[in-house]
Amino acid sequence: MSVEVVIHNGTLVTVDDRMRIIDNGWIGIHEGVIRTIEATAPESPPPTAKMTIDAAGGIVMPGLVNTHTHLPMSLFRGLADDLPLMDWLKTHIFPAEARFIDPETVRWGTLLACAEMLLSGTTCCCGGYFHEDAVARSVAETGLRAVLGQGVIDGPAPGVPDPANNIAYARNYAQHWKDRSRLIAPSIFCHAPYTCRERTLEAAKAVADELGLIFQVHVAETRFERDQSIKEKGLSPVAHLDRLGILDRRTLLAHCVWVDEADIATIQQRGCAVAHCPESNMKLASGIAPVTAMQSAGVTVSLGTDGCASNNNLDLFGEMGTAAKLHKVATFDPTALNAASVLNMATIDGAHAVGMADRIGSLEIGKQADIVILDTRTPHLTPMYHPESHIVYAAGGADVRHVLVAGRQVVRDRRLLTIDIGEVIDRVNAIGREIRSSLNVITHKE
Amino acid sequence: MSVEVVIHNGTLVTVDDRMRIIDNGWIGIHEGVIRTIEATAPESPPPTAKMTIDAAGGIVMPGLVNTHTHLPMSLFRGLADDLPLMDWLKTHIFPAEARFIDPETVRWGTLLACAEMLLSGTTCCCGGYFHEDAVARSVAETGLRAVLGQGVIDGPAPGVPDPANNIAYARNYAQHWKDRSRLIAPSIFCHAPYTCRERTLEAAKAVADELGLIFQVHVAETRFERDQSIKEKGLSPVAHLDRLGILDRRTLLAHCVWVDEADIATIQQRGCAVAHCPESNMKLASGIAPVTAMQSAGVTVSLGTDGCASNNNLDLFGEMGTAAKLHKVATFDPTALNAASVLNMATIDGAHAVGMADRIGSLEIGKQADIVILDTRTPHLTPMYHPESHIVYAAGGADVRHVLVAGRQVVRDRRLLTIDIGEVIDRVNAIGREIRSSLNVITHKE
Repeated sequence: MSVEVVIHNGTLVTVDDRMRIIDNGWIGIHEGVIRTIEATAPESPPPTAKMTIDAAGGIVMPGLVNTHTHLPMSLFRGLADDLPLMDWLKTHIFPAEARFIDPETVRWGTLLACAEMLLSGTTCCCGGYFHEDAVARSVAETGLRAVLGQGVIDGPAPGVPDPANNIAYARNYAQHWKDRSRLIAPSIFCHAPYTCRERTLEAAKAVADELGLIFQVHVAETRFERDQSIKEKGLSPVAHLDRLGILDRRTLLAHCVWVDEADIATIQQRGCAVAHCPESNMKLASGIAPVTAMQSAGVTVSLGTDGCASNNNLDLFGEMGTAAKLHKVATFDPTALNAASVLNMATIDGAHAVGMADRIGSLEIGKQADIVILDTRTPHLTPMYHPESHIVYAAGGADVRHVLVAGRQVVRDRRLLTIDIGEVIDRVNAIGREIRSSLNVITHKE
Repeated sequence: MSVEVVIHNGTLVTVDDRMRIIDNGWIGIHEGVIRTIEATAPESPPPTAKMTIDAAGGIVMPGLVNTHTHLPMSLFRGLADDLPLMDWLKTHIFPAEARFIDPETVRWGTLLACAEMLLSGTTCCCGGYFHEDAVARSVAETGLRAVLGQGVIDGPAPGVPDPANNIAYARNYAQHWKDRSRLIAPSIFCHAPYTCRERTLEAAKAVADELGLIFQVHVAETRFERDQSIKEKGLSPVAHLDRLGILDRRTLLAHCVWVDEADIATIQQRGCAVAHCPESNMKLASGIAPVTAMQSAGVTVSLGTDGCASNNNLDLFGEMGTAAKLHKVATFDPTALNAASVLNMATIDGAHAVGMADRIGSLEIGKQADIVILDTRTPHLTPMYHPESHIVYAAGGADVRHVLVAGRQVVRDRRLLTIDIGEVIDRVNAIGREIRSSLNVITHKE
C-alpha cells in the first residue's frame, strides 16, 4: 500500500484499547489517514514516502484534545490574577470584553491561541466565545481541528448587543459553518444555567439538535452557583438542565465541580461528557471536581484548559500533570488517576466528548493522522522507564517537536508552518498595550 | 565603575523589598557581583563590557532557589508512579538504591539533575542524599550553587552499610567540603524523625552546629508519620524535634504537611524555615501543607521539587504555578498566594531558608549575580500585563534562555556551557537500561 507520509524511529504510544506501546515503530499515512502502525523490523523497513519524519527516538502519540477553552481570551492572559471570580469577571474581564472584543481583535487572539495550542501538542480543541465566525475563520487558517461554539447569554454580548437576537445569531453562525470545513465543526455554547433563562437554554439546545451539533455549557462551577440554583429553583444546576431536556450524548458539560451523587448518576444516564478544567478551578478557588467519582460512575471525563485568562496558558501537558496529582491528594489515594488514565482523558476521552472518537484520539488504523512527536533527548525526560509516565508527569508543551493534523504537518522542529507567529505576537502586543493603557493596569510598583 | 558583564534590553523583576519592576533596564556585573541596576536612558546607555547579554525584551529575574531535592534520584525518574508511599519506597526505590547507587551512578544522576535545574532556571539548590561527596564533586563541575547534605539514617544506606558510622561519615564529608568551594556548602541531612533515633538526631545536629551548617530533615510528611509519632512519643514530629533541641535558624524542615497550630508556633519561634514541596505531596497523596497559615504566623516557606522520582521533574517554574493554584483551592480563597508572594517563595524566601539571603535571592546591588533571563517572545507569554504573573502562571522552565551563577554564564541560548549533556544523557540511559532489566520494569503492554 502506498503512503504519503512515514513517521519512524519513535516509541509509539498508541492510546488504543490495549494502551499498546511500540518501541521503535513506524506509522504510514495516506490522504490524512493512518494506514499502517508497525514495529520496525530490520528485514522490512518502512516504505519510501513523499515525506519521512524522523522521530529521533522520541515519543509518537496522538494529538491532545482540549475540550474547554475560549480562544480569544488569550488577549487577557494575566490581565488580572488572584481575585475572587465575580470581582475578576465584573471589574476586569467584562469591561475589557465590552471595550476591546471585536472581529479584528478576536482574529488575533484566536491565532495566538491556536499557535500556542499547536506548539504544545493540542491538535483539536473545543471552544466557545462570541464573534465565533471570526474565530472559526481564523482557526481554519491554522490547520487546527476544532469544535467552535457561538456564545449564547441573556445579556449584551460582543457582537450581539441585544440578547433577543442570541439564538438567531447562533443559528446563523452554525448553519454557515455546518459541513463547510473538514476541520471546523460549529457548536452552540450556552454560557451557564445562571446566565441563561430556561427558554434560552431550550431554544439553543433545539438549534444544536436540529443541526446535529455539540452543545456546550458551563455547569456547577462554583459553590455559589449550586447553592443559588437550589435556593431559587429547588434543583441543582445539573438537575435543572436535566428537567429542561438539555442533557444527552451531544451535551458537553464544562467544570462540574459542585455535583453530587445524584447529579453524577444523571450525567451518566444521559450520556453527557464532562470537560474537567483543574487549573482554572484551582486558580479561581472554585473547588475540586469529583473526577474519580464521575469516572467510577462511567462518565467520560475529558480535560480542558479553560480560557487562558484563568489558567494562564493553554498547555494541556501541564493540565495532565495537574489533574493526575490533584486527584491523588484530594482523595488521599496515590493510585487515583494513574498516568495511563490521564493520558486517556487528554486524548481518546476528549475525542469521545466532542463526538469524534471514531476519527481521532488514538493512533489506530483508519483514524485521522493527528499526531504529536516529543523530543525526549533532554535531561528532564531522561531516563525513560514508562513513556506514559513522562507524558503526564515530566513533559511539557515545550517538548513537542513535530505536529500533524489530518496528515498535514503544522509544526516542524518547534516552528509553526501555518501561522506567521511574529506578526501575531506583534498584533496582540499592540492590542495589549491599548488594553493596558485604557484600563490603567499597574505594572510598575516603583 | 567598570563592569565585566552587562545584561540589557530586558524587564527587570528584582524581587527586592519593594518588588520593583524596571522596564527596559540593565544590570552591570563585576567579579560575580551585581554592581548596577538601572533603567536604560537614551542619554546614558549601559557601558561597554567584556560580555554583553541582550535579554531581547525578555524578563530578567533572580535565579530560582530549590530548597529540597535529592539530586541522584533523577536516575529513578518515572520508575514507579501511582503507588502508595510505602509500597513505592519498599518495593521500588529502596531495592533500586541498594543495587544501583554507587559513586559512579551518583555522579551521572547528579550531573543530569544539575543540567535539568540550570536549563530550567534554578541557580541554587539544597539537596540531601548518600555518597554526597560524589554529589558535591559533580555539582562543582557544573557551576550550580548548592547546599548538599550527607544523609544520616538509622539503617544500612548506600556508602554507609553500618549505621554506627553514620555520624562520623557525615562529619568527615562536611569537614572536607567546609570552605572548599565558593559555590558548594556542605550540610547534614537527617532523613526523618521516624527513621533516626533521638541520639542520632542530636548527634547529627551537633555536627551541623559545630561546623555552622544547615541541618535538613523531613518532618511531618504523612498523616501516618504524625499519628505514629503521637502514639509512640506523645508528641507531634515537630514537638519531638523541638524537645531534642534540633529546631533553630539553621534547621530546614522539608514538607511540614501534617503540622497543627502549636507546631507552626514552634517553627516560627525557633526561626526554622520550611521547604514546601507541593507536587511531591500531591503525587504521593501525602496531603496539602498549611502554607498560608505558616506564612501568616511568620514562618519562611520556600519551595522545593523533592527528588524527581516523586514529581517527576525539577522544574521550579512548574512548582510555583502548582503552589499558587493549590493553596487557592485548598483555602477556597482566590487571593491566597498571589503571584508576587510565590515568586518570593522561589527566590528570596529560598535564599533565607538556606542562610544565603545576604548573597542571593534577588537582583540587588552587592548580591551575587545569579540571574535568569526568560524568552518572552512566544505565544504563551503574549501579551504581558504583569511579568510576575507570567513567571508564576504561564512560564515554564523551557522559557529560560540564559543563566548566570555568580556572574558566570552557564546557559546560553538554552544550551549548557558547563556540562556535556549528550554524554550525561547517554550514561544515564545506560544506567536506566540496567535498572530496567534487572528490576523487570514492564514497559510493553502488548
